[in-house]
Amino acid sequence: MAESEHAMIARLLSPLSQGLPGAFALSDDAAALAPPEGCEFVITMDTLVEGVHFLFDGSAAAAGRAAAKALAVNVSDLSAKGAEPYAYLLSLALPDGHAVWLDGFVTGLQAAQDDFALKLAGGDTVRTPGPFTVTITAIGAVPTGGMLRRSGARPGDILMVSGCIGDAHLGLVLDRSERRATGWRVAIGDDGVTGLLARNRTPTPRRQLIPALRAYATATLDVSDGLAIDASRMAAASGVGVEIDLASLPLSRACAALVAIGEVRIEELVTGGDDYEILAAVAPADEAAFVAAAGHAGLLLTSIGGIAAETGLRITGANGQPMQLDSLGWDHFA
Amino acid sequence: MAESEHAMIARLLSPLSQGLPGAFALSDDAAALAPPEGCEFVITMDTLVEGVHFLFDGSAAAAGRAAAKALAVNVSDLSAKGAEPYAYLLSLALPDGHAVWLDGFVTGLQAAQDDFALKLAGGDTVRTPGPFTVTITAIGAVPTGGMLRRSGARPGDILMVSGCIGDAHLGLVLDRSERRATGWRVAIGDDGVTGLLARNRTPTPRRQLIPALRAYATATLDVSDGLAIDASRMAAASGVGVEIDLASLPLSRACAALVAIGEVRIEELVTGGDDYEILAAVAPADEAAFVAAAGHAGLLLTSIGGIAAETGLRITGANGQPMQLDSLGWDHFA
Repeated sequence: MAESEHAMIARLLSPLSQGLPGAFALSDDAAALAPPEGCEFVITMDTLVEGVHFLFDGSAAAAGRAAAKALAVNVSDLSAKGAEPYAYLLSLALPDGHAVWLDGFVTGLQAAQDDFALKLAGGDTVRTPGPFTVTITAIGAVPTGGMLRRSGARPGDILMVSGCIGDAHLGLVLDRSERRATGWRVAIGDDGVTGLLARNRTPTPRRQLIPALRAYATATLDVSDGLAIDASRMAAASGVGVEIDLASLPLSRACAALVAIGEVRIEELVTGGDDYEILAAVAPADEAAFVAAAGHAGLLLTSIGGIAAETGLRITGANGQPMQLDSLGWDHFA
Repeated sequence: MAESEHAMIARLLSPLSQGLPGAFALSDDAAALAPPEGCEFVITMDTLVEGVHFLFDGSAAAAGRAAAKALAVNVSDLSAKGAEPYAYLLSLALPDGHAVWLDGFVTGLQAAQDDFALKLAGGDTVRTPGPFTVTITAIGAVPTGGMLRRSGARPGDILMVSGCIGDAHLGLVLDRSERRATGWRVAIGDDGVTGLLARNRTPTPRRQLIPALRAYATATLDVSDGLAIDASRMAAASGVGVEIDLASLPLSRACAALVAIGEVRIEELVTGGDDYEILAAVAPADEAAFVAAAGHAGLLLTSIGGIAAETGLRITGANGQPMQLDSLGWDHFA
């Protein structure tokens, strides 16, 4: 009977809970979890839908990438909030045909949780007549009262972003448009194309930035829907305004090459989304120490603008002139 | 732009976090939660898919029932584990057309969380080309180390169940089969039909049983997939066997009437699922006190069998003879 399949999935997932006693090897109906001494939990939840948040060809490899992405976007949230990853719960809504790729999903998930240093605590598995849907609830730990907020930015703070902006968006464009990819391949080479695709398919949460964020940032969030809209959200939550200078935007070599030859407009990069970099405000006096701490952790931080008293978002184009965006960023309901 | 819809949904949901400071009015990317002094968190996660776990006609009323059911099944898990509901995260995958019924969903959710005494801490909202899908992660609190387990049943323990078994399954049959409903209406009247439908559409988690469970139960779980399969799971987790006497099964008046006239076979009731009653093992010496404590909380407990050393599930039919079930219970992959 079908119970055997349910049991089979539980058997596949159970090893992912190893080393987390409160998960009871996924053999009970719930997990029992307490934050480490002096800490509280930071909890976030994100759903990824096949065809909306990830492309899926039904292969084991694509399933593994979907698993890694689902965990990564949650760990990105935890990292931006200054929380060390601790555990997660996983709910899978599986369409028919999952027998082909479920092993690949679990393999990808195991690799991702090893990378991100958290363990599976529980969850649910159901059948769906719709697309493959993955929901993860991720749990991290911060010193009590220490969750970093969107709302702490102050006028005069410098706005900084980790890594490079725009690659993941260009990776999505490549994944969706063979025609455009062909043109780009000439400009940036196979390696460039592969790099952009990877940045969309397997985001890298910036966990190593947590100590620097805790020490210096006044406000933080991760860039998921687009730099422009996410910066606006930080400003709105803080009751301030934000200014972004597009000439300062940190771009990868491939991305910069595509901008230079006019294949990509720079505005596209700040409205694209899926970067999973961290946006942080920092007091000018702390900027040097913040950059040094991030560098020590192997991560580039770039100043891309600042916080102002006057509310709203103001963007300066690469030509030094104020510019308007057609839309602020990607939205799940766009 | 579409951002306004995302913001609209956040505005709709934000009041549901009122009174939970760590939810930050749903204005940040995560919640910060710590268990009460001396307690740890018990965390469970369940997904409900339109057409699989609930029927949905696109009305606001049906959306409200879906919300209440999604929260109820999670609180049922918490209750069975002896955990007082504390907070929950909600992820909605919304199909097109949700503008019509989303208000109804939120209204139903507000009423359910008031009933169940927990608050919204966060979550996610995404678009799906598939069915309406609701995932909830529910968080409860138990004294540290005190989560009730499936695995504590001992040979000689008495097997007890709360409330009545089978109504919710019959409600589902009614919901899916107009023809059968017409026949039953004659036997049990409109009130009987309405009662069975309600038991499926809006399960009632047995939160009031938590103190009695904590005081007396050796093993617990909630009956979600069917009494027979869930009892087997308790026995397997405890390394023991379980015996169920169908003659002892607590039946509602409507359910008993349908069994008496041969419309429903009693086996159907223990394999049907969706009861959301609590199954508990208890030492014989504690049975009377357990029943009294439950009675004090307004809940009927019925002894339906016992725990034996020999592993496996053994069922005695209403005629006093051993019987075999064709299948053990409902499974999400059936």
